[in-house]
Amino acid sequence: MADKRGSRVADRTDAIMRTTLELGQEVGYAKLSIEAVAARAGAGKHTIYRRWPSKGALFLDSLLSLNEPELNYPDTGDIEADLREQIHAAVDLLSKPPLGPLYQAVLVEAQQDPQVAEALNERFIGPQEEKTIARLRKARDQGQLSSDFDLSLAMALLSGPFYFQVLIARQPLTREYVDRVIEAVFAGIGPKAPPTAGG
Amino acid sequence: MADKRGSRVADRTDAIMRTTLELGQEVGYAKLSIEAVAARAGAGKHTIYRRWPSKGALFLDSLLSLNEPELNYPDTGDIEADLREQIHAAVDLLSKPPLGPLYQAVLVEAQQDPQVAEALNERFIGPQEEKTIARLRKARDQGQLSSDFDLSLAMALLSGPFYFQVLIARQPLTREYVDRVIEAVFAGIGPKAPPTAGG
Repeated sequence: MADKRGSRVADRTDAIMRTTLELGQEVGYAKLSIEAVAARAGAGKHTIYRRWPSKGALFLDSLLSLNEPELNYPDTGDIEADLREQIHAAVDLLSKPPLGPLYQAVLVEAQQDPQVAEALNERFIGPQEEKTIARLRKARDQGQLSSDFDLSLAMALLSGPFYFQVLIARQPLTREYVDRVIEAVFAGIGPKAPPTAGG
Repeated sequence: MADKRGSRVADRTDAIMRTTLELGQEVGYAKLSIEAVAARAGAGKHTIYRRWPSKGALFLDSLLSLNEPELNYPDTGDIEADLREQIHAAVDLLSKPPLGPLYQAVLVEAQQDPQVAEALNERFIGPQEEKTIARLRKARDQGQLSSDFDLSLAMALLSGPFYFQVLIARQPLTREYVDRVIEAVFAGIGPKAPPTAGG
């Protein structure tokens, strides 16, 4: 009985989040309202507010719950190739329609609503950082990264350039651009040691 | 006569921009109005609208006109030290009170208003990129950077991590953090060649 009720609650939660995304894609984030989500999902407004304190929190949860698995890191044993693959997937998902404009709306909301900012970090940025660090730590242990590399900088170095391109420079992110950035982050911009004799 | 009029126009423009910043610091970006700027600066609303199409454009111009000189690059001959100094100055100016919250408000406005986004790039990001590339090109020519380094990636690699920390991870930017990021961008995260014999 408790299990059945738990499963009904989970179903309803899923239905509310799916409806939020559907409506968000139809009307855009700015015009999305919790009232409209409740009406279409056949749920009470209070049911929604009990679980999510704001439109931003509901929206972020909806965006992430349904798509998180896509942003895991592969482990083929080649860290640079695995990062490329994961970042291509993240860029496809988060910077292009249908979800791109909605993710961008969440980022804007996070600048204005501390609850959304906190949810963004707890639900997405933090967990992505953990996954990124776990994959990079393994690579570092295998000698595929500099032994000096400070893993706590990973997200800033490997995500920062792409957020900058989209949000600040407002340039489209191509796979070719992603690959060039990853290559530069691996190689470093400093002068290279001269090749050793015969190298 | 024409010169005198030109100089009066420049004075009035300066007065409007100074007033915009003063009021912005007093009431915050959201509550700033062109009406209030006009009233305090003793200028007509139409005078302001003739020059700036929106509050965002006026505000961005005000923020930048009065502070641009601070963000030039020193040239001591040591590129890593010069970058550190310039980025410390930029972080102090753009991520801390009094101007930090206002710059952040402009970045949010740019996500929502294409005119502000365009002005941000034309008036600030683009010119900063030009200065950055000029300084880095000189350093590359002097052998202080990798000869392979693609200068068109400079802003994304050297600014992206800091925008990420402030806007997405929402962490404070310390000088120590800035220095660690610069060091990592110079060294690269990839494995280092083993030291040569005697090295």
